[in-house]
Amino acid sequence: MSFSARLREHNASTWDAAVGHRFVTELWLGTVDPAALQAYFVQDNQFFDAFVAMLGATVAGADRPGPRIALARQLGLLAGPENDFFARVLDAFDVPLPDRSDPELVPATRGFLDLMHHARTSGDYATCLAVLLVAEWLYLDWADRPDAEPPADAIALEWIDLHRGPAFAAWVQFLRTEFDRATAALDDPEQERVAAVFARAVTLELEFFDAACAAV
Amino acid sequence: MSFSARLREHNASTWDAAVGHRFVTELWLGTVDPAALQAYFVQDNQFFDAFVAMLGATVAGADRPGPRIALARQLGLLAGPENDFFARVLDAFDVPLPDRSDPELVPATRGFLDLMHHARTSGDYATCLAVLLVAEWLYLDWADRPDAEPPADAIALEWIDLHRGPAFAAWVQFLRTEFDRATAALDDPEQERVAAVFARAVTLELEFFDAACAAV
Repeated sequence: MSFSARLREHNASTWDAAVGHRFVTELWLGTVDPAALQAYFVQDNQFFDAFVAMLGATVAGADRPGPRIALARQLGLLAGPENDFFARVLDAFDVPLPDRSDPELVPATRGFLDLMHHARTSGDYATCLAVLLVAEWLYLDWADRPDAEPPADAIALEWIDLHRGPAFAAWVQFLRTEFDRATAALDDPEQERVAAVFARAVTLELEFFDAACAAV
Repeated sequence: MSFSARLREHNASTWDAAVGHRFVTELWLGTVDPAALQAYFVQDNQFFDAFVAMLGATVAGADRPGPRIALARQLGLLAGPENDFFARVLDAFDVPLPDRSDPELVPATRGFLDLMHHARTSGDYATCLAVLLVAEWLYLDWADRPDAEPPADAIALEWIDLHRGPAFAAWVQFLRTEFDRATAALDDPEQERVAAVFARAVTLELEFFDAACAAV
């Protein structure tokens, strides 16, 4: 079993609680309380920049040219066509400026900012990949429901579509392959260190959904 | 006078020797010895990956979200549409595989690799910008000749076109603005440190053209 598969299994209860979270269920049904949805995007918007920065550090830290190019392309996508998503969503909710630029952060948001800062400044490829992989893989897991009826709400649907489909699935597969390759050569203490980063990210994903629901 | 303007002036003799180099003159005329042109691209190809990595570190190190996005978009361009340039050129010259993957490096190439490695691992925004700025600005300087007849040689023309035009000029202007802003708050020893990186990059650009001509 690959390291990524083992880590997911090891964190299965937290992982599955996030993927099957009430917030996700209601997002698919289009019944999320608008205040919860707004709170979710206001908080998520706060670490978009940190995520872009961490992806830059992953490009810098990659140990091979091929994966470096693949990471750089994904970064270009994120900074290009996908960059205006939050601005459009916050416009749609008519979120006041202070809540866009400097809202009160929930602990899960602070936790993500700390974790991404840690990954970015470590310059360590495997550490960056661990945070990226959880963020993208866990989202693919809840967004990829081939048999589900898509929600009528345009924002919910766009958020789902950003995290499913062949291109996004290939990106997650790429991250898994790289993560498994980059961690294969690590000794046990190093693998445990990366595993702790992975576990921390899964916990934060669950807490992030909890916080959105608690905002109502 | 801005810091970038002062540094260019301070390095004017080296800068102008590079911009007006025989290699550049012959590139415009389409008369570069094919062996020199091939040697040039074989060496340049050797630091494309290091350049992408350094640009990733610049994305990671940027101190503001707006410039970070601009840098990430440029990185996406470089990793996307412009990524196959070297492969196509080396194909056109029918360069043998060992000279693509592991050629003997001239000192200027080693120097660039060291400088980019230094900038990347420093994680310092101003240091990364200094190397980027010289690489892009000096190239715009020799490639932007509005009154010159473009060369008939397709490779020479594409290489020129990659380093001129409104989008490339705006990218250089962006780098200058960011460099001047990021260095404005530095104390004198820090500014001198960045100035030394700038000067080293200018020297290497000149030596890199020298090396191409010496390869014949």
